[in-house]
Amino acid sequence: MDEDLFYPQDSIAALATPWGESALAVIRVSGPDSLRLLAPVFEPASATGKTLDEAPGHTVHRGVITAPGENGRREIVDEVLAAVYRGPKSFTGEDGAELFCHGSPIIIRRLLALLEEAGFRFAGPGEFTLRAFLNRKLDLTQAEAVNEVVRAKTDRARAIALDRLSGAIEQKIDQIKSILVRLSAAVELRLDYPDDEVEESDNLAGEDEIAQKELERLLSTYRIGKIYQEGISVVLAGSTNSGKSTLFNRMLREDRAIVSEIHGTTRDYLEGVLSVEGIPIKLYDTAGYREQAEGVEAEGLRRTDRIVSNADIILYLVDGESGFTARDEEFLHGSGGEKRLIPVWNKIDRQSSRCPAGFMPISAKEGDGLEELARAIADKVLTGVGMVDSGEPIIDSLRQKRLLERALQGIKDFRAGLQAGQPWDVLAVDLKEALDALGEITGEVTSQDILNQIFSQFCVGK
Amino acid sequence: MDEDLFYPQDSIAALATPWGESALAVIRVSGPDSLRLLAPVFEPASATGKTLDEAPGHTVHRGVITAPGENGRREIVDEVLAAVYRGPKSFTGEDGAELFCHGSPIIIRRLLALLEEAGFRFAGPGEFTLRAFLNRKLDLTQAEAVNEVVRAKTDRARAIALDRLSGAIEQKIDQIKSILVRLSAAVELRLDYPDDEVEESDNLAGEDEIAQKELERLLSTYRIGKIYQEGISVVLAGSTNSGKSTLFNRMLREDRAIVSEIHGTTRDYLEGVLSVEGIPIKLYDTAGYREQAEGVEAEGLRRTDRIVSNADIILYLVDGESGFTARDEEFLHGSGGEKRLIPVWNKIDRQSSRCPAGFMPISAKEGDGLEELARAIADKVLTGVGMVDSGEPIIDSLRQKRLLERALQGIKDFRAGLQAGQPWDVLAVDLKEALDALGEITGEVTSQDILNQIFSQFCVGK
Repeated sequence: MDEDLFYPQDSIAALATPWGESALAVIRVSGPDSLRLLAPVFEPASATGKTLDEAPGHTVHRGVITAPGENGRREIVDEVLAAVYRGPKSFTGEDGAELFCHGSPIIIRRLLALLEEAGFRFAGPGEFTLRAFLNRKLDLTQAEAVNEVVRAKTDRARAIALDRLSGAIEQKIDQIKSILVRLSAAVELRLDYPDDEVEESDNLAGEDEIAQKELERLLSTYRIGKIYQEGISVVLAGSTNSGKSTLFNRMLREDRAIVSEIHGTTRDYLEGVLSVEGIPIKLYDTAGYREQAEGVEAEGLRRTDRIVSNADIILYLVDGESGFTARDEEFLHGSGGEKRLIPVWNKIDRQSSRCPAGFMPISAKEGDGLEELARAIADKVLTGVGMVDSGEPIIDSLRQKRLLERALQGIKDFRAGLQAGQPWDVLAVDLKEALDALGEITGEVTSQDILNQIFSQFCVGK
Repeated sequence: MDEDLFYPQDSIAALATPWGESALAVIRVSGPDSLRLLAPVFEPASATGKTLDEAPGHTVHRGVITAPGENGRREIVDEVLAAVYRGPKSFTGEDGAELFCHGSPIIIRRLLALLEEAGFRFAGPGEFTLRAFLNRKLDLTQAEAVNEVVRAKTDRARAIALDRLSGAIEQKIDQIKSILVRLSAAVELRLDYPDDEVEESDNLAGEDEIAQKELERLLSTYRIGKIYQEGISVVLAGSTNSGKSTLFNRMLREDRAIVSEIHGTTRDYLEGVLSVEGIPIKLYDTAGYREQAEGVEAEGLRRTDRIVSNADIILYLVDGESGFTARDEEFLHGSGGEKRLIPVWNKIDRQSSRCPAGFMPISAKEGDGLEELARAIADKVLTGVGMVDSGEPIIDSLRQKRLLERALQGIKDFRAGLQAGQPWDVLAVDLKEALDALGEITGEVTSQDILNQIFSQFCVGK
């Protein structure tokens, strides 16, 4: 890959904090000339102050941002602090700086414009991390993890992504690769000395099987990785007055780990975000099923149907005080084989009939049974996805999954070929295919298109 | 004032950047023990790494945030950088730090919780700036300006607030105060030596008049300061099809200095934010006046009426192609003495009748006449508010205005008393009143209530 395609000589700049009024905003710059280019923009506070270009790495400097003003004088745009970083001991591996200005959109805009005039180019999404990758500060799985850490929706998802950021996947891949390299060496030996007797058992000794098992194990973490990173949708369904809104509010209120955002109107549906045992959940409260619905309400019910049919989990509430409605019977009867369904018997705080078998008994009003309900949701989601030993890395990237599948296919072909007595040069190709796929995962072998696709999903400024 | 009322011994922490997903978030801590308290939370990256408590000021350190994990091990919450500041060379004047973590709401929440466990208290709004004031890093006018810089809606407002942040008002106040101190000294001399002949002309020599003029001049900047800081509202009114929506979109599109935010629906009204000659403008596009309106639309028109009656400026558009409607005649006739009105003759790009006298000719579609319209808006807003020499400080705070009025009254009383031959001890009280008011402006004399009121309007983390 030609790294010049990514314009590594450009000095890039971007806002690294969210847009809005706040105490502070951080503008990040990086590039071989970045500190020199800052000279006309950043003026050190003290008269004896060195320019940033002369400052050592990991130091902070007070100063002002200036712009050409009236009558040839410099206009002060803001009072700022600048943190200087020196490659290779920086995030990107290059020289760079972070400018801490007042968190005013007006100032951010002025400062970015001044940086552009001074010769900086606005960074694309993920371009700082791309540079860290190109400068070998991170492998590609770590680079992807940078974005996953930012996007993590629950603390468990954060921990999994941070583990990837620390290089856990790269280590696992390296371990599998070293097995494949040993296998390749053994195959090459037979290619080079076809007539010699080579002691087979010493060299291959089941290593191909170990490599396959390790790849399969890593691949199996993909579904769990996706669940924790992207979360699932849970819809509350049931007749009017079954207590859906009460349960919705109660579940959001009890989840203090995440700010709940609520969209929509009760007429239609409500949407909230919460964490259930570390799994990010989008919770929907739908319009109740009434016997008759017209106009706006009928439209609401159509949308409800759509949400219910797309949900990962359906919590179907029955009003335990008044018992099953005709609609309940119809819905539950029609959902006999529905794996996504968790039937819930609400209002157990009232004088009421006994909770039928197969229903989760709760009181949305009093909060009884909610922990059990949360566990039931997590169990249903995680059933069949395979558990992961703590300490094992978990993948979440579709790209990594596909490459692991390619590597796995290479090993399987190799093992089948070995069994079938295929010639050594064919077997060598199978191993090379597997090794190449693993090399693409960590970014040893990669293309511009792939990198563009990965980093385009990042925040700007990252 | 008892400074202990503000708990200066507490170590405080707050998120200093806006809430949301982004490349970076900054958590700020300050307080005499803050660096020591960070020890269990921040673990330096290198094995030989010193703790932050041993680090010199204005240095940046790589490390991880850790929390108690399973089996007595430390769990890594995030990889971060920490900038260390040492009092008195810090914003607050105290020891402190900024932690740069991944811009993930999950991480921000965990980190803030860990800091609270470590002994930090969450900072109130403006508490970092309050400490800077209490530690004499800023006077009170500068402290107020910190918030005004963040809140500035246009570049002109930013420049005015930044001038105040640099201490321009404090300098002006000090200058007036030194005159009053000289006057006081002269008065004291006459009180102490009532029988001596004192050469009047040498000591007072018109200084009281200068002080009064300076106070009046500074006071007169309040209206202009308010206009630039808080902005004004401009409403587009006129019959349906007069081109209000076209003008609304055109004005917002041409203003590239500010991101335009648009709220509401066309059925009701639209609201946009833009800058007209450095003045922040809230621009409203109202529902058209139709002959007949019922139901939802009638409600929209009632809201329109409310917006029109509260606006600072009304741009009344007439469709220059089809000429005046009955509604136009009625409105313009009824608004004869309306000082807020700017009549606009739109669609001059079409074959049309001549623009009547007193109307601004424009083409909202082609953009003709928009610069002149902007100037007309700025002229109307600034007429009568008094111009300010460039380089003169401009006040925007109601608090400062009221205290300047008190000081001015003191000087006026002094001068009137002098004229009327009042005794020296009475005159001394007038001067003291003026001096106290000026001292309150800069915060030399102040109370807890006043400080609480000022800083409660700040962002948290500032």
